[in-house]
Formats: sequence, structure tokens, C-alpha cells
Amino acid sequence: MTLETLIAVARGEQSADLLLKNAQLVNVLSGEIHPADIAIHEGRIVGWGEYQARQVVDLGGRFVCPGLIDAHVHLESSMVRPAEFARAVVPHGTTAVVCDPHEIANVLGLEGVRYILQASEGLPLRVYVMAPSCVPATSMETAGAELTAADIETLWDHERVIGLAEMMNFPGVLFRVPAVLEKLRAAGGRPIDGHAPGLSGLDLNAYIAAGVRTDHECTDLAEAQEKLGKGMHILIREGTTARNLHALLPLVTARNARLCHFCTDDRHPDTLLTEGHIDDIVRRAIAAGLDPVTAFQMATIHTAELFRLWDLGAVAPGYRADLLVLDDLETVQVAQVYAAGRLVAEGGRFLPDRAALPAVSIRPGVRVDVAALDFTIPVGGAAAEATVRVIGVIPEQIVTEELHLSPTVADGAVVSDPERDLLKIAVVERHRGTGNVGLGLVRGFGLRRGAIASSVAHDSHNIVVIGATDADMKAAVAAVVEMGGGQVVVAEGEVQAACPLPIAGLMSDRPLEEVRDRVAALTEAAHALGCTLPDPLMTMSFLALPVIPALKLTDRGLVDVGKFDFVPLFVSDTE
Amino acid sequence: MTLETLIAVARGEQSADLLLKNAQLVNVLSGEIHPADIAIHEGRIVGWGEYQARQVVDLGGRFVCPGLIDAHVHLESSMVRPAEFARAVVPHGTTAVVCDPHEIANVLGLEGVRYILQASEGLPLRVYVMAPSCVPATSMETAGAELTAADIETLWDHERVIGLAEMMNFPGVLFRVPAVLEKLRAAGGRPIDGHAPGLSGLDLNAYIAAGVRTDHECTDLAEAQEKLGKGMHILIREGTTARNLHALLPLVTARNARLCHFCTDDRHPDTLLTEGHIDDIVRRAIAAGLDPVTAFQMATIHTAELFRLWDLGAVAPGYRADLLVLDDLETVQVAQVYAAGRLVAEGGRFLPDRAALPAVSIRPGVRVDVAALDFTIPVGGAAAEATVRVIGVIPEQIVTEELHLSPTVADGAVVSDPERDLLKIAVVERHRGTGNVGLGLVRGFGLRRGAIASSVAHDSHNIVVIGATDADMKAAVAAVVEMGGGQVVVAEGEVQAACPLPIAGLMSDRPLEEVRDRVAALTEAAHALGCTLPDPLMTMSFLALPVIPALKLTDRGLVDVGKFDFVPLFVSDTE
Repeated sequence: MTLETLIAVARGEQSADLLLKNAQLVNVLSGEIHPADIAIHEGRIVGWGEYQARQVVDLGGRFVCPGLIDAHVHLESSMVRPAEFARAVVPHGTTAVVCDPHEIANVLGLEGVRYILQASEGLPLRVYVMAPSCVPATSMETAGAELTAADIETLWDHERVIGLAEMMNFPGVLFRVPAVLEKLRAAGGRPIDGHAPGLSGLDLNAYIAAGVRTDHECTDLAEAQEKLGKGMHILIREGTTARNLHALLPLVTARNARLCHFCTDDRHPDTLLTEGHIDDIVRRAIAAGLDPVTAFQMATIHTAELFRLWDLGAVAPGYRADLLVLDDLETVQVAQVYAAGRLVAEGGRFLPDRAALPAVSIRPGVRVDVAALDFTIPVGGAAAEATVRVIGVIPEQIVTEELHLSPTVADGAVVSDPERDLLKIAVVERHRGTGNVGLGLVRGFGLRRGAIASSVAHDSHNIVVIGATDADMKAAVAAVVEMGGGQVVVAEGEVQAACPLPIAGLMSDRPLEEVRDRVAALTEAAHALGCTLPDPLMTMSFLALPVIPALKLTDRGLVDVGKFDFVPLFVSDTE
Repeated sequence: MTLETLIAVARGEQSADLLLKNAQLVNVLSGEIHPADIAIHEGRIVGWGEYQARQVVDLGGRFVCPGLIDAHVHLESSMVRPAEFARAVVPHGTTAVVCDPHEIANVLGLEGVRYILQASEGLPLRVYVMAPSCVPATSMETAGAELTAADIETLWDHERVIGLAEMMNFPGVLFRVPAVLEKLRAAGGRPIDGHAPGLSGLDLNAYIAAGVRTDHECTDLAEAQEKLGKGMHILIREGTTARNLHALLPLVTARNARLCHFCTDDRHPDTLLTEGHIDDIVRRAIAAGLDPVTAFQMATIHTAELFRLWDLGAVAPGYRADLLVLDDLETVQVAQVYAAGRLVAEGGRFLPDRAALPAVSIRPGVRVDVAALDFTIPVGGAAAEATVRVIGVIPEQIVTEELHLSPTVADGAVVSDPERDLLKIAVVERHRGTGNVGLGLVRGFGLRRGAIASSVAHDSHNIVVIGATDADMKAAVAAVVEMGGGQVVVAEGEVQAACPLPIAGLMSDRPLEEVRDRVAALTEAAHALGCTLPDPLMTMSFLALPVIPALKLTDRGLVDVGKFDFVPLFVSDTE
């Protein structure tokens, strides 16, 4: 729309496209709720007042709010394409997300970031991208790519790339690692997201002074208060697993709500389908006593302004016509959603034609020579006295413990021993064809037979596999490779359940409901094999993450996270 | 300071420059007041906590606030250079101003804007510039320059030019005048200040939709409420003349204070010296019942964020160390001011060496052939029945009324007639040597003899002169030209009082106190000649402003502001 047209329509000289009559506007600018007849033209709000329009919708006193914004999300956690993610969240009133394509970037580098941008083109959901700052996440593993400061700078040309994503490497900032500071400088004054669980005092001062102005990792009130008081915007997270709303809600006051926001970080298919998205967080916040207008301000204008999205987050002249219609402000049931002035969801249904959504091709993300795989762990020397480091799983946590046990040995090699719940785990490098395989042992999965494997394994997303036999482990990896990435449960060489994730080995090309069902089937199949964990695939996906204590396995070997160094599987006599 | 040094000092690995111990920090981020030992290094806050520093100052529990920011000011109204303005306002706690060099740009164009930038370089006051949007202000007068959209774009290279200044030509926006919209487009997404007294309804929608997001012209609460609710930031103005605080203060709530700010717009020397600056507005606001923390938020962080000055407006890690020390939060007596970490004012005294402040030369702003001046108004035809349009001054207002009177005639020409308080007024074009002289009559000054003249005459700043005789009018203009611009009172050919304003005919190169005294002397001299107006020079300076009703005079003739067109001095028989 030209500026001339915008002005002419706003003045009422020309008819608008659409008039939403008899709305009660939740005005996040003034903090008031007031009646308004809202005129919309070519995707923008032109104002409220006495307008003529080609289409008039009488809202009969229902509430109108600006579209909701997720301040920080990894789209990959939804396990579906951006178009399918949009189909899931837009009916819940989300019209914009600020995403960090950290996972896909660790697999495919800049190509992965560009895939997210292309695959979100033209959606009724505005997908903004923060340039991933930590690819690879550590030097202890083989990722699919490395993003340097120079690589990051190539992304600024894209109008939807708006800042630097969560700087998880806060030790790298504090210790002034040159490549890390180069990335902060590459941000060039754009917003920089933080990630610094528990950081406080002088180290927190330093991290903030370096330019990091948000945090979504607060888990307790005092931590959030210190961070906010020092200038960080607090993104209150309610993900599938990490849920911080109730701990952090007392943080919010009318005087500081400008610095308070909502985010999901990671929501899995089942959570999106059963609980919803930002609407769910707003609903919980209001139910917990937060003033509704403040809750909507946090979910809209405050987040838009944080990320300098100057025409988002409010229903006011000149703003993008992204808005929702609500029957009431307590249950936050979203009746209708307009994106860029078009009705895109009604009564929970997504209206756009799915075929019209972008389908973008992407190069394969899995490169493994299956025939060459060998999970043998030979025992040298005095097998009877050997002691091994075992990853001890703690149910429903992503931290592990380091156990020291004597292995079960057969034919001069360490073997899985389901009787002792002592299973082999392998991490198979899948990006570069290095043939790297990290081998270890894990306790806590309880598999009696078969194997489970996945190409989702934070943060480098190599293939991780756990099994009762080497043969089933190989069969599971082979099945993952065959699918071009995915998750699988195998028993006696037969696939019991599978979820193909052909997009970078992280995301499906199928509908969200199917992915949710397949994930449920995987869990069920693993349980049928004796696994006792509630979500074994998810638990397994964090066993290769060498930044979370205590003992983890990457394609390059076992990592003692406390020492931030590799350790041998066998405990030496001198330890 | 390098990022490496900033981080190292913030972590406490190296000593800071300065530690302000035992402060009570007015934390405009959290909205709380709490104790803090604040460390500063190389001009930035590094944080608070246990720090070592080369210099330690014990504040003994006094309050520390971020430096105050004037959201909108015309520096020229102070009638002194930027360095001298800084000397006046920094001891009052102002450490940054967002200025619109509208006046000097109307005289000297881009050179005028660049003068303000150069003359404010290195001051302990951060002077940000909005690019003037309305030069010339109208097509009915001859200004010294024209700033096109292309000219405006040449300014963006300067890091302290941060947006487009008040778009006074709101009719030009509403009627979509191409050159006006070009300027809005030239802003390129930067902040655009508004100026739209009384605009409301659909026209206001259109003005805001066009991208204008601030207004400092609200005079009543309902107007401000409508503007704020539609997305405008409201800059509450307390100038020398226009004072809107008490009318607008009820606007401010905790939920909308993010959109509320303070500005002075125009403060003259006497006001700056006797009342102060933003501290004065904060003090009045608190006295009127505004919560002190909210008042400081409005005067600091909210304004910094409005103008996207991301490291100003708060005392927090990484922010610029611009701050003030207060004994209490009610009287807002500023005990000390730090700018970029240096103590720059104490107990109302400005500490930097005045000689070190920049002295910048600028080309002369006055070009008039005095010998050619002729203020004769010949009466053609039947002199006895002639009727003339007379500018009727309304005391202490800038609007005028149009009177129709029969002129006093001598020797076939209209003459000033002090007996009837009917004086000649002339506007002498001073920028381009056109020889243009607009002639008219004015009632309300009450001069019995002599003449007053000034090169300050909004908005084109030609020389305006009013006198009892043509000879004294010529002498007064000659004196202004001789000074290279200024204000003068003349009687019988002799200068009675004068204030030279050699910088663009708008600003003095002398200290503020001297300018204040000279302005007082001018008023006194005018009163001695019979003038009855409290501030005749100021009243006269608005008689050439053809955008304020009803009858005004420019160098090109009499203007009927209602018709926005020229009208003849003599009323024709057919009217």
C-alpha cells in the first residue's frame, strides 16, 4: 500500500477493506479497554471511528487484542515445518514469533537458517529470526556446520533477521574468547538474546555490559529480579518441559512490565495440540492473578518493541492488522484471528489453504556409512577388574550422573546387559561422513530388548542410539539413515515404530497431529520393550549435549562436563 | 573502551575508574529504589557490587538517578550557543537533549544543522538532532534555505542525527503533498516527531498512520488521551510560554507511562536561569502528585527508548555513565552531575573549563542593503476613504486579530500614528538579498516613539521592525544588520538597548546571564518608549509567523492565515 493510499483511507476519503464494528479494544498502548469500530486496509489498521468499508463485521462487543508474539522459540522443537507450526499456533492467536534456528543451523549451517526464512515466507505467521550465535555449541562434538561472525553478518540483509540469538556460551563472553566477542560485535547494535541460567553478581554485570539484554533461563524470582534490575528483559518461559511462569510471575509490576515477556522456547507437538501456545501462558498468568491488560501488553507491544518491530504489537493507526477476537479476557479462548487483515483462523480452525503454504526443498541432513558401523567396545588387559564410566539417567531431568561400574563382558568386549539395566549407547556422526562413533554405557532406560535411535540429539544432532544388542543398534541407525533422519524403535531387526524427520533430521514434512501420534507410538513401542522412562526419545536426545552436567557422550567420546574435557570409558587404576 | 576491557572491569578483574559507594539507586528499570555501590569505567557503568576502583566516592545514602533527557527542544530559544546551553542545563541534571534545529535551519539550511552538530561536539551534554522537516515553514515567506527530502537524507550519516523533526505541516500530510510525503519516506523508519495541535478523529488516524509517533502540542487531557491511545508518545511540555504539565499530568498511569515524556520545546534565558530545565518539570510533577520513580522513568529511560538511544537513560551495566546525585526525591535539588563518568557539575556549578568548549565559526546570517530600504506606504486614489487591515495584537498570545481601520495619512502616504497606537510594521528579507519588504500596520505595542527590531522572527527569521517613524525603523534595522543579527531598541536614531545575535541572527556568543540581562534591558527600553506589552520583542517575533491566525506579515506581504493566502493592506470597496 502506498503512503498516499494509507492516508486517504485513514482520513475516510476512500472505503477501507474491512471494518470490525462494535469491538471492545484491549488497548495495550493506553492500558484501557474501550469500544472501537476498527478499520483495516491492505493489511494495516488505519484507525477507528466512522469508516466505510467493503466488508463490515459486527463483533457484537467481543474483545479485540493485538496478535500474540512468542519472544523466543526454537521452531524445530515442534518437529514440523514452519507452515505446519503456523497451522498449529495461529488459531491460538499467535501472529508472530521470534525464533532461533539453532538446531537446524547446527545441522545445515546458513542453509538451515535460510530454509527457515524461505519456508516461513508468506505465512499468516510472521517468523522473525535471530542469527544463531553458538554453532557449533561446543568444540567437543562434530556439528554439521560452523557459523562464524562473518557468516552471521551475511544474514543481516534479510529483513526478518533481527538480532543475535541466545548467547549460550556465557563463559566464552566472560573469558573474552575472541570468536565469541566477534559475534557480539557482529550484532552491530541489534538485539542480543541471552542464556545464562543462574548467572549473578559481577559475572552477570559483565555479561549484560557486553550487550546481552534478554534472558529466558530464569527459574527463580530472585534471579529474575537481579537480571531485570540490571537491564535484562525477562522472557518468562512455559515450554513443554521448562515451566517458569509460576515462579516468575511475582516479578511483574506495572512499573517494570515493559521488561517482561512470554516465550515458549521449546514446545513439542503434544503440548501445542493440547495446551496451545502464548494464549496458554496468558491464560495461566491471568488465572494466577496477573491483570489481563498487563498480560496482553507483555504478549504483544512489549515484545514487539523489545525486538524493534515498530509496526507490530498494537491495534492502532499504521500498525499491521494482526489481531484476535476473544469472547472474554479470562479464558482467553481465541474466537478469530486476523493476520495482515485477513481472517486466518476461526474457532480453532486454520483457514488458509494448506496447499498454498510454501514447500521448500532442502539438502539431506544425514550422511552415514551404515555398513561400516561397529559398536564393539573391546576390553584390553584384565577384563575382570575393569571399571567403566556409566551415564546415569535421572528421570525427567536433562542432567545425568556419572556412575562407576564393572561392565558385563562377553568375548573380550563390553556388551549391553539388560538384566543390569546397563545398555550400550552410541553417538554416530551424521553430518560430514567422518565415521566418528562415540561409545559408552547408560543406565536408566530399562530396555529389555531392541534399540531406540534418533537424529534429534542436542545440540549437534548426530544420531544417538541405545540398545540391548549391537545388531538392533545397527538396525535402528540404519532405519534412521534410511528415513533421511528421524526417530525409531527397533526389535530383532524390525522397526516397531518410526517418525521420519527428513528435514535436517529434525522436522517432519507431515501434519502436526501425525507427528504427535508417531511420537506417542514411539514411546509406546519403547515401553513395550521394557523402557521405564516417560519420554525415552526426549531423554535420549539430551545425552549428547556436553554443556549439561555431568557425564555425556558425543561422537568424539565421553565428556566430563564439569571438567569440560573428554574422559576415557574405562576408569584407570590411578584414578 | 574495548569490549574486552569492559567485560574484564565488570567482572572485577581490573580496577574501575570510579566507585560511587552507598548510593540509593533510583532504578528506572525495575521501578525500585535500592542500595548500590556503582562502578564506572571509561564513561560507562560496569555494574554494582563489590568493586575496586582508583577513585571511591562515598555518597552517604544519597540518591542516584540516570541523567535527565529533554525529549524535544529548540536550542535556539535559549539564545546562546550549545556550549552555553550545556553550561546552563547540565547543573540541573540534564545530560541529553533531543533537539530540532528548526530555527537555524530556516536561516542557514544544512549549514545551520551542521553548526549545531559541530558546536555540540564533546560537550558534557549529549545533543541529538532531529532533521528539520519544515524548512521553509510555508511558501508565503522567504526563508534562508530549503531542506528537501534529499537534503535530509544527507544528514543520516551523522550518528547524532536520529530522526525527522516535528512535522508541523500536518495539512501537507493529510492532503498528501508529494514533497511532504517524500520527507516522511526519507525518515527511513527512524522516529518522526509530530506537531498537530488539536488534531483528532480520522485526521489524527491518518497523521499517525503516516508514521508520526510523538506529539508535544497537546494542551488538554482528552486530546492527549486520544493521541496516546492511538500510539503517539506524549511529550509533556513546560516551556517558557507553553505550559501543559498540569493539564496533562492526569494522563499518566503506570500502564501507559512508557509513552509519556517531558520536554521544554522553548525555554528562554530567564526561565533557564530562574526555574531550571527538566529537573524543574520533574519537581513540579512530583509536587503535583506523580510517583517519583515514574517521573524519573519518564525523564530518562522512556525517552531514551523512544529515540532508540539504547545505552542511555538507566544506571545499569553497559549504559553510559550519565547520572545525577540528589539529596532527596521531592525537591529534586541536583547535588552532582556525572556525564560519561566525569563529575561535570556540583551544587549548581558547571565544572568543565569553558575555554575547552567548542567554538565553531559560521557564515553570517544577515544580508540586507540598508541604504535601499524604504518603508513608504503610498495611498493611491481617494485617501480619505481608505481602509487598511491592521494586525491586532492580543497580549501574551501569539494569535492576532484582523482589524479594519482608516489609516493616518500624511503627504499621500500611510504613517505610524502613536496617538492611535497604530504603528508601521515591516518584515525585511535578510537571507538572500531579494530586497523584499513586507509592510503593514499593527495595534497593541503602544510605542510612543522610536522603534524595535529583531532578526528573531519565526519561522523564517527575517528582520521584523515596528516603529513610530520610518527613520527610527530604518535606524533599528541598520543596527540589527550592523550587529550581524540581533535585537535592538532605537529612539531618535540612537540605540537604547541591544542584544547582538551574531550566530544566524538567532544566538549570542556571550554567556547566558549576559543575554538574559540584555533581553531585560531591551524590554525596559521599549517600556521607556511607551510600549505596554510585557515582552514586546517576543510578541513581535511571532507577527511574521504565517501559520498562526489571524493576520500576519511576511517579507512578501500580509497573510490572512485563515485563507492561507496573501491579502492587500488596503481593503477594497468590493469586500
